[in-house]
Amino acid sequence: MQPHVPSDTTVTVLGLGLMGRALAHAFLRSGHPTTVWNRTPAKAEQLIADGAVPAESAAEAVAASPLVVVCVTDGDAVRDVLGSVDARVLEGRVVVNLTSSTSEEARQIAEWATGSRATYLAGAISASPSDIGGEGAAILYAGPRWAFDQHAGILEPLAAGTTYLGEDHGLASLYDAATLGLMWGILNAYLHGAALLEAAGVDAVTFAPLASAGVRTVVDWLPGIAEQVDTGRYPAVDASLDIHVAAMGHLLDENESLGIDTGLPRFVKDLADRAVAAGHGGSDYAAMIEQFRKPAGHFE
Amino acid sequence: MQPHVPSDTTVTVLGLGLMGRALAHAFLRSGHPTTVWNRTPAKAEQLIADGAVPAESAAEAVAASPLVVVCVTDGDAVRDVLGSVDARVLEGRVVVNLTSSTSEEARQIAEWATGSRATYLAGAISASPSDIGGEGAAILYAGPRWAFDQHAGILEPLAAGTTYLGEDHGLASLYDAATLGLMWGILNAYLHGAALLEAAGVDAVTFAPLASAGVRTVVDWLPGIAEQVDTGRYPAVDASLDIHVAAMGHLLDENESLGIDTGLPRFVKDLADRAVAAGHGGSDYAAMIEQFRKPAGHFE
Repeated sequence: MQPHVPSDTTVTVLGLGLMGRALAHAFLRSGHPTTVWNRTPAKAEQLIADGAVPAESAAEAVAASPLVVVCVTDGDAVRDVLGSVDARVLEGRVVVNLTSSTSEEARQIAEWATGSRATYLAGAISASPSDIGGEGAAILYAGPRWAFDQHAGILEPLAAGTTYLGEDHGLASLYDAATLGLMWGILNAYLHGAALLEAAGVDAVTFAPLASAGVRTVVDWLPGIAEQVDTGRYPAVDASLDIHVAAMGHLLDENESLGIDTGLPRFVKDLADRAVAAGHGGSDYAAMIEQFRKPAGHFE
Repeated sequence: MQPHVPSDTTVTVLGLGLMGRALAHAFLRSGHPTTVWNRTPAKAEQLIADGAVPAESAAEAVAASPLVVVCVTDGDAVRDVLGSVDARVLEGRVVVNLTSSTSEEARQIAEWATGSRATYLAGAISASPSDIGGEGAAILYAGPRWAFDQHAGILEPLAAGTTYLGEDHGLASLYDAATLGLMWGILNAYLHGAALLEAAGVDAVTFAPLASAGVRTVVDWLPGIAEQVDTGRYPAVDASLDIHVAAMGHLLDENESLGIDTGLPRFVKDLADRAVAAGHGGSDYAAMIEQFRKPAGHFE
C-alpha cells in the first residue's frame, strides 16, 4: 500500500442512497475532491452544499476520477449505471463496487467489467451508513491486488476494518455472508437465552453483561478451532461432543420446563447428535464442521 | 463482601474429579488450609502431597470447615454424599454445590439441604478445570446473599468471573444453560461459515480473525438489544427484519451454490420469516425474542 495519498486525489461516487452518501461524506472529510452522481439528483443536495462536485451523467462522473465507487440497489443497477458509460471512458479506471450482492453476481459483474476494460474490485460493507468512517465499520475487498494497493490510502478512511481478501471477486460477498451468519447465530442464541431467563424473572439487561463475557470467551477459542478444521483432526481440547450433547439435553430440559421455544435448542442438539452418530462423540466441537461441509462426492 | 479473608480460613472440597481437584488446588494456592475427601481416596494423592488434609469420611471433611464445596458427578451423588453426613455436623455450615445440574435439580437440592440445616448455595462453573483460578473462568452463584458475601473472599480466587446472581437457587444453572446456548450458537455459525469459505478455497485460520472481529462488533449491540427486549418495543436501529431476511436469502443462495449444508441457514431464515409474518418486518432484530418467549397464555 502506498504510504501517502495526496488528499487532492479525486474520487467519484455513483449512487447516493443512505450508504452512498455516507461514503461520499467520508471521502470529503478525508479531503478528497469528490464527484457525485445519482439517478435522482435531489439526493446530492446536502453533499454539494458540503463541497461535492455534481456530475450531469454517470459518464461525466466516471471521467472525473481514477477511482470510481459504485453503491446502488443491486447488481442489475450496477450494470445499468456502468453500461451507460462508454468503454473508452471506463478504460484505465478502477471501479469499486460496494453494492450488496452474492459472490456469483460479484463474479459476473467482474467479468462484464473486464470486458469494458475497467479494473474491477468487488467490495462488501459490514457496517451501517452511520458507522462509515468509524471504528465499527469493516469493508472487505476482492479483485486485483495492485488495484486495491493503489487506492488503499483513499479507501482506508472509510472503515477501520479495511481488508483485502484475494483475487477471487466472489470472496468479499462470501466473507460478508459468513459473518452475517455468525451475527444471526449470536443474536438468536442471545435472544433465546434472554427468553429463558425472562421466564425466571431476569431482565435481558441483567443477562447482557454475562452473555457478553461468555461470547468473548468463545471468541478466544476460534483460532484453535480453526486449526483443527484446517487439519481435519479434532482431538477434544476440553469437552468432547458427548459432554456437549449432555449439556444440550440440560438446556432443552430447562426450556421445556419453563415453556420456552424448544425449536432452536432441539435443532442444535439434533446437529450434534448426528455428529456423535457419525463417530465424533469423543471429538472436539470442531468436528461439527463435517455436518456443514459439502458432502464428499457431492460433485462426483 | 468482606474486604479481607484471613488466609487461614479453612475450606473443604468433597469430590475430587478433574474439576474438584482443580478447585482444591486453587484454594491451596490462595493459602487456605484445605480438607479434601473423595469416595475413591487415590484421587487425593497429589493434593495431599501439595498440602491438602485428607479426611476419612465426608462427615469428617464437613466437620473441618465452615465452607464446604461439593463437586461430584450429578445431583444424586450430591444427595448421597451430603446424606451420609449427620445433620448436626452440617448445621451452621455453608455448602456450595458446584456440581452440574439443571435449575430444577438445584432447587430440589436446596430444599433438601435446608431440611438438613446447612445453608446452601448453588453454583455453576463456566470453565474447564485447567481454567480454574484464571481470567477465563466464570463461576455463578445463587442462594442466600449473606452466605455468598460471607465467603466471597475465599471463592473469588477460583474464577475472575465470580458472580452472585440472586436468591433463587435455580439461577446459576439457568444462566449457565443460556450462556452455553450462546456458545453453541457462535460455534455452529462459525463452523458453518468456515465450511462455506473452505468451499471457496479459504482456510478456517484465515477466516478466524475476521470472524472474531465480527463477533466483537455484535457483542457491542447486546445492551441495546436487551433494552428493547425489556421494554417490548423494537424500533429498527439500523436494519429492519425485512432487510435481515433478504440477506438471509443471500446466505442461503451462497450455501446452495457451493453445495454446503442449507439446514442451519434455512432454520435461521424460517425463524425470521415467522417474525415477519407476525408483523415485525419493520422491527429491529430484537423482535425475534417473541419467537422464543413462552407463548402468551401458555399456562392459562
